[in-house]
Order: sequence, then structure tokens, then C-alpha cells
Amino acid sequence: MKERLTVVKVGGQVVENETALASLLQWFTAIDTPKLLVHGGGKSATRLASQLGIETKMLDGRRITDARMLEIVTMVYGGGVNKHIVASLQALGINAIGLTGADMNVIRAHKRSVGEVDYGFVGDIDYVDGKCLSELITKDIVPVIAPLTHDGKGTLLNTNADTIALETARSLTDRYDVTLHYLFEKKGVLLMPDDEDSFIPVLCREEYERLIADGIVRDGMIPKLQNAFSALDKGIKRVFISNTEIVK
Amino acid sequence: MKERLTVVKVGGQVVENETALASLLQWFTAIDTPKLLVHGGGKSATRLASQLGIETKMLDGRRITDARMLEIVTMVYGGGVNKHIVASLQALGINAIGLTGADMNVIRAHKRSVGEVDYGFVGDIDYVDGKCLSELITKDIVPVIAPLTHDGKGTLLNTNADTIALETARSLTDRYDVTLHYLFEKKGVLLMPDDEDSFIPVLCREEYERLIADGIVRDGMIPKLQNAFSALDKGIKRVFISNTEIVK
Repeated sequence: MKERLTVVKVGGQVVENETALASLLQWFTAIDTPKLLVHGGGKSATRLASQLGIETKMLDGRRITDARMLEIVTMVYGGGVNKHIVASLQALGINAIGLTGADMNVIRAHKRSVGEVDYGFVGDIDYVDGKCLSELITKDIVPVIAPLTHDGKGTLLNTNADTIALETARSLTDRYDVTLHYLFEKKGVLLMPDDEDSFIPVLCREEYERLIADGIVRDGMIPKLQNAFSALDKGIKRVFISNTEIVK
Repeated sequence: MKERLTVVKVGGQVVENETALASLLQWFTAIDTPKLLVHGGGKSATRLASQLGIETKMLDGRRITDARMLEIVTMVYGGGVNKHIVASLQALGINAIGLTGADMNVIRAHKRSVGEVDYGFVGDIDYVDGKCLSELITKDIVPVIAPLTHDGKGTLLNTNADTIALETARSLTDRYDVTLHYLFEKKGVLLMPDDEDSFIPVLCREEYERLIADGIVRDGMIPKLQNAFSALDKGIKRVFISNTEIVK
């Protein structure tokens, strides 16, 4: 039987808020399996851009990343957010290491080709080096991954944190029995968007397809759930979409 | 006989200039011993601060680092500069990893106590984990260290890159025969500040003390040379203060 491993993705809403982040990191510290954290930081990037007089352009929830925006996300994700989390985890006794895809060549990607939209310096993942990550994990080192990859030619690429979490989890399924947590501000997938207590405790694929067909699951929840079911197809054992209140 | 190791410290002037940085990284790539890079980035931090309307206060060449300035240097050193160098080295075939002192707890420091001056979130180094660094180096991974340490209680600290290079080099002298390069824009220690060709090829301690007594070596060169001779006292075998033109 493989050893268990927990991959946690935490979004920008939590990362932005000191109290929420502290509580998340305590929850993360208490997880008693080997683990790995993937974080976002979009809200902080948008704020810094705005302070610098640079407009943030989003399309379907994705950031258009020109050269100047790439500099901003590199600073915010790779430096500000990542190193703050790493130092905070060290204080909690977790031997964390902050990584982007460029570090040890852990995540290679290519610049998304220009279709109807030019997203700029945005990466689609080619490869996650699960061996390298598992070598760290074996030594009780906890990788903290920023949503940045690289193309191997010297260019960093802004990359969706949900996708990094999925592909990273997938790269470790050969070696581990992997659980993936997509943490967000709600208790889970809600039957009624305004009622926090209407969350669905367990969602199977048939039910999920029915909820989409009925228009109950929509907007931003659709890609989240697509990712989740795709994770199950790719050998990840369990996927949670919830806040830490529910899964503790 | 111990294996050789080369520690290179590169300052902000080079990091700021794309052409100079590309040439430095090519020079660094060609070094045929195991190696490690420590970088600065002060000029980029000052520029970002200024764009955000924040005044940079320096005292004796050292940055006063309040909470807001700490955020800036964390973004610039740990994110912008560090990850740019790491991605560039990967493109040159060097398996680089970017680190701050918080990552894997590699450099622990304490906040400098407030004397006549309150430098703010500035760290004095307690400990560099040479064992952890040498484990990376043994696997052909090249550490790229940003001038940030941590106190183990969750706070990052702005830390002088020359000192990080010195203490990092020192932490590796048990395992390696260490050469330390302080790269800067001049060819070396100049007898006449305006004449680049007046550099002193080899400087022994007696000569160095005579040059200070005679007022020929002064200003910013004094701490640089103090660091260099201190390195020799601490078991580092060779110290160079020069640009890459001279040592290639």
C-alpha cells in the first residue's frame, strides 16, 4: 500500500487575509501525512499593479500577462506571497521550501499559443518532476509552490494554480496515495448559492453532470469541478472542494 | 584533498543590467567546479519603492527596512531578481534553485538590535546550514541565494549580500576547498580610483593595512576588504574582488 500524500491548493482570498492565512497554515500544519502546498496570489498582484498604475485585464477569470504584468506576478507570487508562507510555516515547525517551476526545473511549460485571445506570458504545463518533489518530501521538506512555471529558455510563465495543483498531484500518484484539496471560501459546492448550508457533502460524477445540466452548478464552479473530476481520472484518490472548516 | 567549490557574489549594478547579467551568467556557467551564487538587488528595490512613492533611506550604504520596505525587498530579491536568474541559468543548462534563508531553514538570523540607529527588519546571521547546501550541490543543483534571511518566528529579514556570501562560503569550508568571488564593476582594488588599470593583482594583508593607513583604500572599499580578509581568516582559501573580465 502506498503512503498517503496531501496536496493543498489555496487561493488568493485566503492568502490576502492575514487572519485567514494564519488559520489555514495551522490547519495545514496539523495534516499528519506528507504534504505539499500550492498557492495563488492574484488579488495581491492586482493590487500591486494598480498601485503602479497598471491595469489588470482578465478574461474568463484568467489574467492577461504582458511583460510588465509578468514582472509583477513574479515578484508577488515568487517573492512576496511565497516567502511569507515559507517563513510562517518554518515558525510552525514545518521545514518548507518555496518553489516556482524554474527551481530545479520542477515544472516545465510552454507559452500558450495565441488563438482568439493572446494571454501573453501564460504557461500550459508540459511536465512536473514528481521524482524531484518526492525526494524533498522523503526528507520531510514541504514544497510550497507558486503559480509560476518556466519554458526552459529563460522565460517564466504565469500559470493557473488550480492546474499546477492538479498536475503536481498527478505527478506523485505513482509514488503516493494522493488526496487533493481545493480550498476556497465556501463550505463546498452549494445547491443554493446564497445558502452556505446547502453544500453537497459527496458529489459523484452522475450527480455533477445532472447539476450542470440543470444549471445549478455554473460559472466559476464548472472549471473547478472539471479539474476535480479530471484529477480522479488521473489517479488521484480523493478530491475535496471546500474550506478548512469542513475538512478538519 | 577536498573538492573545490566556487561561491560568487554579484551586486545590484550587474543584476539591474540585462546585458551585464547575461554576460555574468555565461561566465558563471563556465566555472568548472561546483558553485553557488549570491545576489543583491538593491537598485531594483529602490526603483520599485520609488514607483510606489516610498522613499528609500540608506545609512552607511545600508537600507533602513521598515515593514513596507521589507515587503518590497521580499518581492524584488526573493521573487523578481531571484527567479529571473534561476530561469536564465536553467536556459544555460544549470540546474539552479532559488533560495532565501527561510527556504529549508538555510540561513537563520536575528533582527539587529536597535542601537543609535534602528535599521528595522535587518538580519544579522546566526547560522548557515552548510550540510543542506552541500546536499544540493552534490546533486549538481546550484543554489542561487537572495539577500533575505529569517528569524524562525515567521519574519523575513533583509540581510547584506556580501555577508551572506561570506557566511555561506564559511559554512562550506569543512566540506570544500572554497574560493569566494566578490564581483563588482571595477577590475579590482585600484591604487588610483580613476585609473582602471591601476588595480592591484594580489593584495596581502600587510599591503592592505598600509593602503588603509595611507588613505589610498577608503570608503566602500574598506568593508569589502575587511570581509575579504575575514573570509581568509575563516578558512576560505582564495578571495577575489574584481569584475569577470579579470578572473576569466
